[in-house]
Amino acid sequence: MTDMAELPPEPSGWLSDRELNHVRGELPLLYINAVPVRINPHGELTHVGLLLRADDDGMISRAIVAGRVLYHETIRDALLRNLEKDLGPVALPRLPLNPTPFCIAEYFPTRGISKYYDSRQHAVALAYVVPVDGDCEPSQNALDIAWFTPEEAASEDIAAEMMGGQESLLKQALAHCGVLP
Amino acid sequence: MTDMAELPPEPSGWLSDRELNHVRGELPLLYINAVPVRINPHGELTHVGLLLRADDDGMISRAIVAGRVLYHETIRDALLRNLEKDLGPVALPRLPLNPTPFCIAEYFPTRGISKYYDSRQHAVALAYVVPVDGDCEPSQNALDIAWFTPEEAASEDIAAEMMGGQESLLKQALAHCGVLP
Amino acid sequence: MTDMAELPPEPSGWLSDRELNHVRGELPLLYINAVPVRINPHGELTHVGLLLRADDDGMISRAIVAGRVLYHETIRDALLRNLEKDLGPVALPRLPLNPTPFCIAEYFPTRGISKYYDSRQHAVALAYVVPVDGDCEPSQNALDIAWFTPEEAASEDIAAEMMGGQESLLKQALAHCGVLP
Amino acid sequence: MTDMAELPPEPSGWLSDRELNHVRGELPLLYINAVPVRINPHGELTHVGLLLRADDDGMISRAIVAGRVLYHETIRDALLRNLEKDLGPVALPRLPLNPTPFCIAEYFPTRGISKYYDSRQHAVALAYVVPVDGDCEPSQNALDIAWFTPEEAASEDIAAEMMGGQESLLKQALAHCGVLP
Repeated sequence: MTDMAELPPEPSGWLSDRELNHVRGELPLLYINAVPVRINPHGELTHVGLLLRADDDGMISRAIVAGRVLYHETIRDALLRNLEKDLGPVALPRLPLNPTPFCIAEYFPTRGISKYYDSRQHAVALAYVVPVDGDCEPSQNALDIAWFTPEEAASEDIAAEMMGGQESLLKQALAHCGVLP
Repeated sequence: MTDMAELPPEPSGWLSDRELNHVRGELPLLYINAVPVRINPHGELTHVGLLLRADDDGMISRAIVAGRVLYHETIRDALLRNLEKDLGPVALPRLPLNPTPFCIAEYFPTRGISKYYDSRQHAVALAYVVPVDGDCEPSQNALDIAWFTPEEAASEDIAAEMMGGQESLLKQALAHCGVLP
Repeated sequence: MTDMAELPPEPSGWLSDRELNHVRGELPLLYINAVPVRINPHGELTHVGLLLRADDDGMISRAIVAGRVLYHETIRDALLRNLEKDLGPVALPRLPLNPTPFCIAEYFPTRGISKYYDSRQHAVALAYVVPVDGDCEPSQNALDIAWFTPEEAASEDIAAEMMGGQESLLKQALAHCGVLP
Repeated sequence: MTDMAELPPEPSGWLSDRELNHVRGELPLLYINAVPVRINPHGELTHVGLLLRADDDGMISRAIVAGRVLYHETIRDALLRNLEKDLGPVALPRLPLNPTPFCIAEYFPTRGISKYYDSRQHAVALAYVVPVDGDCEPSQNALDIAWFTPEEAASEDIAAEMMGGQESLLKQALAHCGVLP
């Protein structure tokens, strides 16, 4: 399975797994998407970080940071928690000054409605680009974190390894930062 | 009661009222907020439209357009549906070319966590400014729709008539359009 | 010659041609760039308009709308004037509600400093996406105006026909509107 | 005199003072405006920095960082140079990842055309909010740098001490960062 944030064991936001599964067929769920990046001293994006994951069938894919917003949790706290979940505790992310996402990614359980697809649910993700200054350690859900230049990140090869339309979100992030090749 | 979108009878998004009330204590709900505006031929904002509402106790308040995003509904469709719900069928809204909201308003059922408050639920609203060219007719949920200049809209008088922090969202909308006095 | 807005005879902004040529080697000049687009009733971008031009050597290229901001002219007026100059008087452009450009394109007379190049000058362009509802007629400076889907506009073929880095600006415009393929 | 950036002795961008004065009556000049801010570990704006200046008549005013973009200078370099000019060499500014300004401030030498006024010239300023982590030392052009909470910065008292419409730009910066009171 290769859906967004499939693998991480997330806190349930006070819903039992059974309840969450029920709600997933009834309501859009609110998510965070975050593209971790390295910047140079001038503030320019130099590299994009992608998580490497293997699903139950051993299929390899690359993904951005993703996770739910919990009940009574602010967007900033959800962003920080999900970054820590996927990048480890010493990634030192710089949360955005302006809390508006650069993009809203609408994941539907039906293909073709938007560019984004998630077989499990209708998820609406607020997407951010987040510079990280510290060391990133893959959490239990990822095999590795690899860093790519904008040219590499926008390539067909990387796009072929991403799922659910996230290759499109990645290109939009590069465009937002003025470095889409 | 004066919470965001309290009065409108909304479609349930395939949840029964009982289920929706349960979920409201467990998950953040995804909302649309829209500030309807009039523009001049140069595209500049000239007036802001606010709904006038009376609650069960006869208390009067002003509000912007608000409503839920339903299961399997796109943001654009939710925006259009909620604009039609509150402004009537011939408002002729111009949906935004760029689908990114100008602001994310986080409504908490606890005061003081953010600028936005909703006693019923944790709601996260994607907020848009939407020019409307046609006639606006108050729906059953509103007594009237009144139009204000940016100076009037940013005044203390109007702020005192708004609820849940929407006076703050309104100012942010004016700033986004370059017309905050 | 294929620089941005080389061909149009522009008003001088109260500088003689000799003075303007002098200033071009001394100061950055302020420009407008505009990507004309067609939208559907839901506000979604369906087509991008590109000007077809032939230079003195008969070489063909495609370009977006471009032109200087004159002394004592507002950005809105400059945008409107340059759209009318390149698209004719009945294009019916919808000027943006939010006056902030989606991108700043920095054209240098030296290659490699940024993605944008203009052999004549250092020009800084405020770039906008502008929906047009009316008929577009190529002005004297353009042979034709052609409309392309997002897929076509982002293709290698179109990129090869654009100059000075405008193919990059075009992709960024598509990303900004959520329709970069 | 209280115009934007009147006091700093700026590099001329290869124009003599006589030439620059001439051009000021003929062309819009490109400027940078920057609002220095302090942020907390969550990335939220806590304080805004304003320069305190005295003009030749001993009149006191508060201002944001401002200065010209020079010939062949990138926006990032101009931003960095002007921040260093006004805040000193160890302010450690975090330049923005996304190079698009939050606002374009159009200063006219005639009152009433826009919210911004500069008696000397038509200047178009790209405006940024810039977190600074280090120590700020007033340069020779400023008496002091003082830090204000969003509430203080948006107050009537501070507005009364600002010139040329910059109080409006300051409010727009607060709104952009989600902290306009």
